[in-house]
Amino acid sequence: MEELDYLADERKTAQFDVESMKIVWAGSQHVFDVSDRISRLVASDPAFRKDNRTMLSRKELFKNTLRKAAHAWKRIIELRLSEEEASKLRFYVDEPAFTDLHWGMFVPAIKGQGTKEQQEKWLPLAYKMQIIGCYAQTELGHGSNVQGLETTATFDPESDEFVINSPTLTSSKWWPGGLGKVSTHAVVYARLLTDGQDHGVHGFIVQLRSLDDHLPLPGITIGDIGMKFGNGAYNTMDNGVLQFDHVRIPRSQMLMRVSQVTREGKYLQSDVPRQLVYGTMVYVRQTIVADASCALSRAVCIAMRYSAVRRQFGSQNGGPETQVIDYKTQQSRLFPLLATAYAYRFVGEWLKWLYTDVTERLQANDFSTLPEAHACTAGLKSLTTSTTADAIEECRKLCGGHGYLCSSGLPELFAVYVPACTYEGDNTVLLLQVARFLMKTVSQLGSGKQPVGTTAYMGRVEHLMQCRCDVQRAEDWLKPSVVLEAFEARAARMSVACAQNISKMPNPEAGFAELSPDLVEAAVAHCQLIVVSKFIEKLQQDIPGKGVKMQLQVLCSIYALSLLHKHQGDFLSTGSITPKQASLANDQLRSLYAQARPNAIALVDSFNYTDHFLGSVLGRYDGNVYPKLYEEAWKDPLNDSVVPDGYHEYIRPLLKQQLRTARL
Amino acid sequence: MEELDYLADERKTAQFDVESMKIVWAGSQHVFDVSDRISRLVASDPAFRKDNRTMLSRKELFKNTLRKAAHAWKRIIELRLSEEEASKLRFYVDEPAFTDLHWGMFVPAIKGQGTKEQQEKWLPLAYKMQIIGCYAQTELGHGSNVQGLETTATFDPESDEFVINSPTLTSSKWWPGGLGKVSTHAVVYARLLTDGQDHGVHGFIVQLRSLDDHLPLPGITIGDIGMKFGNGAYNTMDNGVLQFDHVRIPRSQMLMRVSQVTREGKYLQSDVPRQLVYGTMVYVRQTIVADASCALSRAVCIAMRYSAVRRQFGSQNGGPETQVIDYKTQQSRLFPLLATAYAYRFVGEWLKWLYTDVTERLQANDFSTLPEAHACTAGLKSLTTSTTADAIEECRKLCGGHGYLCSSGLPELFAVYVPACTYEGDNTVLLLQVARFLMKTVSQLGSGKQPVGTTAYMGRVEHLMQCRCDVQRAEDWLKPSVVLEAFEARAARMSVACAQNISKMPNPEAGFAELSPDLVEAAVAHCQLIVVSKFIEKLQQDIPGKGVKMQLQVLCSIYALSLLHKHQGDFLSTGSITPKQASLANDQLRSLYAQARPNAIALVDSFNYTDHFLGSVLGRYDGNVYPKLYEEAWKDPLNDSVVPDGYHEYIRPLLKQQLRTARL
Ligand SMILES: Cc1cc2nc3c(=O)[nH]c(=O)nc-3n(C[C@H](O)[C@H](O)[C@H](O)COP(=O)(O)OP(=O)(O)OC[C@H]3O[C@@H](n4cnc5c(N)ncnc54)[C@H](O)[C@@H]3O)c2cc1C
Ligand SMILES: Cc1cc2nc3c(=O)[nH]c(=O)nc-3n(C[C@H](O)[C@H](O)[C@H](O)COP(=O)(O)OP(=O)(O)OC[C@H]3O[C@@H](n4cnc5c(N)ncnc54)[C@H](O)[C@@H]3O)c2cc1C
Repeated sequence: MEELDYLADERKTAQFDVESMKIVWAGSQHVFDVSDRISRLVASDPAFRKDNRTMLSRKELFKNTLRKAAHAWKRIIELRLSEEEASKLRFYVDEPAFTDLHWGMFVPAIKGQGTKEQQEKWLPLAYKMQIIGCYAQTELGHGSNVQGLETTATFDPESDEFVINSPTLTSSKWWPGGLGKVSTHAVVYARLLTDGQDHGVHGFIVQLRSLDDHLPLPGITIGDIGMKFGNGAYNTMDNGVLQFDHVRIPRSQMLMRVSQVTREGKYLQSDVPRQLVYGTMVYVRQTIVADASCALSRAVCIAMRYSAVRRQFGSQNGGPETQVIDYKTQQSRLFPLLATAYAYRFVGEWLKWLYTDVTERLQANDFSTLPEAHACTAGLKSLTTSTTADAIEECRKLCGGHGYLCSSGLPELFAVYVPACTYEGDNTVLLLQVARFLMKTVSQLGSGKQPVGTTAYMGRVEHLMQCRCDVQRAEDWLKPSVVLEAFEARAARMSVACAQNISKMPNPEAGFAELSPDLVEAAVAHCQLIVVSKFIEKLQQDIPGKGVKMQLQVLCSIYALSLLHKHQGDFLSTGSITPKQASLANDQLRSLYAQARPNAIALVDSFNYTDHFLGSVLGRYDGNVYPKLYEEAWKDPLNDSVVPDGYHEYIRPLLKQQLRTARL
Repeated sequence: MEELDYLADERKTAQFDVESMKIVWAGSQHVFDVSDRISRLVASDPAFRKDNRTMLSRKELFKNTLRKAAHAWKRIIELRLSEEEASKLRFYVDEPAFTDLHWGMFVPAIKGQGTKEQQEKWLPLAYKMQIIGCYAQTELGHGSNVQGLETTATFDPESDEFVINSPTLTSSKWWPGGLGKVSTHAVVYARLLTDGQDHGVHGFIVQLRSLDDHLPLPGITIGDIGMKFGNGAYNTMDNGVLQFDHVRIPRSQMLMRVSQVTREGKYLQSDVPRQLVYGTMVYVRQTIVADASCALSRAVCIAMRYSAVRRQFGSQNGGPETQVIDYKTQQSRLFPLLATAYAYRFVGEWLKWLYTDVTERLQANDFSTLPEAHACTAGLKSLTTSTTADAIEECRKLCGGHGYLCSSGLPELFAVYVPACTYEGDNTVLLLQVARFLMKTVSQLGSGKQPVGTTAYMGRVEHLMQCRCDVQRAEDWLKPSVVLEAFEARAARMSVACAQNISKMPNPEAGFAELSPDLVEAAVAHCQLIVVSKFIEKLQQDIPGKGVKMQLQVLCSIYALSLLHKHQGDFLSTGSITPKQASLANDQLRSLYAQARPNAIALVDSFNYTDHFLGSVLGRYDGNVYPKLYEEAWKDPLNDSVVPDGYHEYIRPLLKQQLRTARL
């Protein structure tokens, strides 16, 4: 029997080599091979089934995740997977779990902040999972303001120990993933007090639970903080609450790479530069940007395939109706998101390079690019996560009513994704940091200090303040240099305008605060410029594969021009382009949609996602949507019986008008 | 003991009389009294408890809703509540249930489309709930395109019956609320076939389940379509699937007000105007706009109160940190939403009037305003629901990490609200209808036919195409006439530009399709103008109460100017204002935020929501957030035991490195 493929016709119209594009998307042949192999491994293992997730109670759901995590680890050992393969496996299992924090935060914290001896002691235990760790920073009362944390770690010179304590209700640790039910250890952030002096917030390794019976150690209260957004979603994770009642740990468990407390209780700074912590931040945020392109591409893949299956209106003489993907409104909502997924993929790739670059420089004691790298990653974290969260919901709406069913996969994808806008730095708080860096850059422009990296364009501020866009025909907008200059002019002019307005205020701090909404907009403009410019840079490379580069050029133009249209107000108010030019950009955009249309399905096939990973009836590779939707419906527990539980108590008395006497 | 009120200081700074504002918000003293009384009634009845909703399994959740619905009906009877009171009671119970469709769709469908005899037969049964009905229109394959429905109703003259049939899988009814497990009857939409002729889609009353044992009648297959977005949310509703295998119903059960089938099988049109159905649409959509202002104000109330409680950064000399409500970024995200809630409240009020007006005209056979009223309500449905859905999520983000907890109330509010963007007309499809009406209006401008109602401004198109905004100082933007003209110019110019661009295309239909993304933007501009103008009209009325009108003026300006800022691109590209004027509007906006700040909490208190209705720990009236968050956490079933279920099977073997032998 031939394999069913309702989207075969769509695949035939592609004008490029899909297999080559898959390599471009993956980043390299090697990464493609590993991803492809591991994703199929996960998809074919019934132990990793996830389609029943939304029907489980919290307890069942959580237990199920424990089972999967153990099974994953078992497979990792049995198959002797490399670190890269193991992390891909966890990725494709696609369920938030305590292991995320263990590998993603606990281990890196010890690596980044622990001394050599500390690393030698703790990392082998962690690598073998003989201990499980989490990252306990946020408290009930403080998240964004880390310096305001209230937990204390008081050095007791008598016993050579720290006393960890939660002095107030608001000092309870609150949110750490993996804490609530699983972790045996945590890196706990607390105010270091020696001899009555407060040295600010430092990290400590604290054992939380007995390795024998898993009970919390004396003086420690731990629990789960309860249900979160969505059905399955993040409820597989035991985000936890933690309180210390004068819990003692040895002095050696303070993370001492950057500063130490001596046996006598003296507080010392080591000669390791404090900026090192920024290196870790750049690393973590770079993974968040990569995750954004994954989540976004998943949502786009689902909405794109379903839009090609779904038909509504437009039947002529009894023929088939129009595929909704052919409506220009659908295209104008969906194609920019497709382009954004590719744009974020490439900027993520570049951030990986940036992290390596920063690390090398740090090792050579060169801190010159660090502030710029820090601002850039903070900004890109904010931009990509905000856009992705909104885009997933837009993709859901693009699927009409059926997008609201859990079997579409989109509600859960949204619910599990949105906290990325909040954790690792609230997105608004991060943009304000970017803005602060931009204002500093502007203020130093006269000083001869040349801005570096992603702010290098500011060095041409004089030109950018007065340059005029010379687009005269719609096609002129296809020139990368034209697009780039328009984005540079917009970003530079917005920053300069903010700086000028601040300088009119009585004092700069108050001015910054007062103008912060404008500053956030300037920061966004700066970050969008980065993404556009990295996409353009990518296209200056050699990209093999029939038609591949051509498609990427179309996507790059769609990305840039759809942003330009959406933020027209910025471009026009700064005079970076004229209304006529804005309108030409819009015309060009429409013809780009027409060019993308025959390639639309192939461009989402290039993500190479398995049906298991997509987890969506609407996004199935074969487009066989309706019979499968129907099948899924019957699995709901409510369908276990024809007459629902509660009929006799509540429906029948209602219909029979016997409610008065009923006990409800 | 004094009552705790952490927000007391905030309440003291209010510059207006909150009790008077409550009346304005409610619409009248009478509505306020009823709402206030019924909301307290519900809040104080433990049977209506809802804080445990997210912890229940689907079956428990659903059974619980059946219980509440029965209890609500019992109370309605016991207390002899009026229709108004009963509907308020259902509203404050705040849980989607089969009764929504029974009262909101089944009964109105019979009223609107049934003959007098049919009404006399069915309505008394429905009013007493001796039968329970739902509204079965959408199918697996067709939602937006109602004319494409596939279910058939074939007249059999032999037996004087209709044979209802589902010829394909995609013809299965899919989505109707209350269908899956509860309804005994449905209004089913099906293609009417007589004597081989297809007369298009008509409504039929069909009994689905036995009134004795609740089993589906022969030939009928029914089930629930499965889990939907969110945890509790819409999963209290049994949206269902329904298939007919040649089910027979008497001829008298076709809804025959507008067209009939005679005993002989002849298809006749009655002299009742078909436009009547639009009256019902205006009615239903008006309630949706009212619901939008409720959902939005709820979310704003939660975020506003929590923003006054939450402090982060900015501590000076060990003093308290800054309340996050004092950050201008927080204000610029939140205050426009507060203003929007009020704006939607007033446009909703006006729509109620419009419905009455349309109904009176229909009765006098005056159809002249119907197309305009129809376009206007379609557009406002789309605008208000899209904005509200996004705004709820924005409010959630404004609460930082804690907004992601179900106990914040915001995740569930979002999940339960978003389908409003899809049901009763997909929002994009609706905007395209508005755009079509606008294009028609523009095309008739030369003909001497004067545009009416909300399109009346188009009659001044010549002036609006060339008028120049004369704002010179920021304060000029406080003049209603200035704001109104800017919004009118923007809307008119966008419509005219679309019309001109369409006329350049080879044929108008293709042109409309090609330019549909621009047309949608023009439609949005038109709808926003309506909301702004109705807010301004409201302020021309006499509004009693100390300082009340003043506050509303501030909110009106915030609403209009924040929209203007957000859509700057429209205003600038059409030349309706200059960049300088846009910047002045932004300056004015900032000082309006400062004016609103001392009144912020009082302005959300004016919604008069009980803590039960808000259902949010973060939004509590007394601001006692942290202890209550802490308390809520411990209720999670995961906290039933200290060591989690699954420890022995999955965590211990992991820690003890005994996975190889474990069975997972
Ligand atoms: C799913 C999830 C998982 C998490 N996992 C962990 C974990 O493993 N370990 C851990 O330690 N923590 C974790 N967290 C906590 C997370 O890091 C914090 O929630 C996050 O840092 C945001 O801080 P907050 O909640 O205090 O937000 P807040 O700072 O309270 O934000 C509230 C509002 O105030 C605004 N605001 C705050 N400061 C300013 C300012 N200076 N200027 C302008 N506006 C401001 C924000 O923009 C926001 O709108 C997790 C959170 C979530 C949701
Ligand atoms: C919670 C919920 C409750 C519901 N309750 C009921 C009920 O009680 N009874 C009932 O009968 N139904 C009910 N429905 C169904 C609802 O009415 C439909 O889902 C809705 O009408 C949208 O139709 P659709 O799902 O076919 O969307 P589609 O039309 O398939 O939309 C998919 C995409 O196509 C686009 N599109 C479609 N047509 C066009 C066009 N002509 N031009 C441009 N773009 C287009 C849309 O914009 C959208 O992006 C419910 C749905 C939900 C989610």
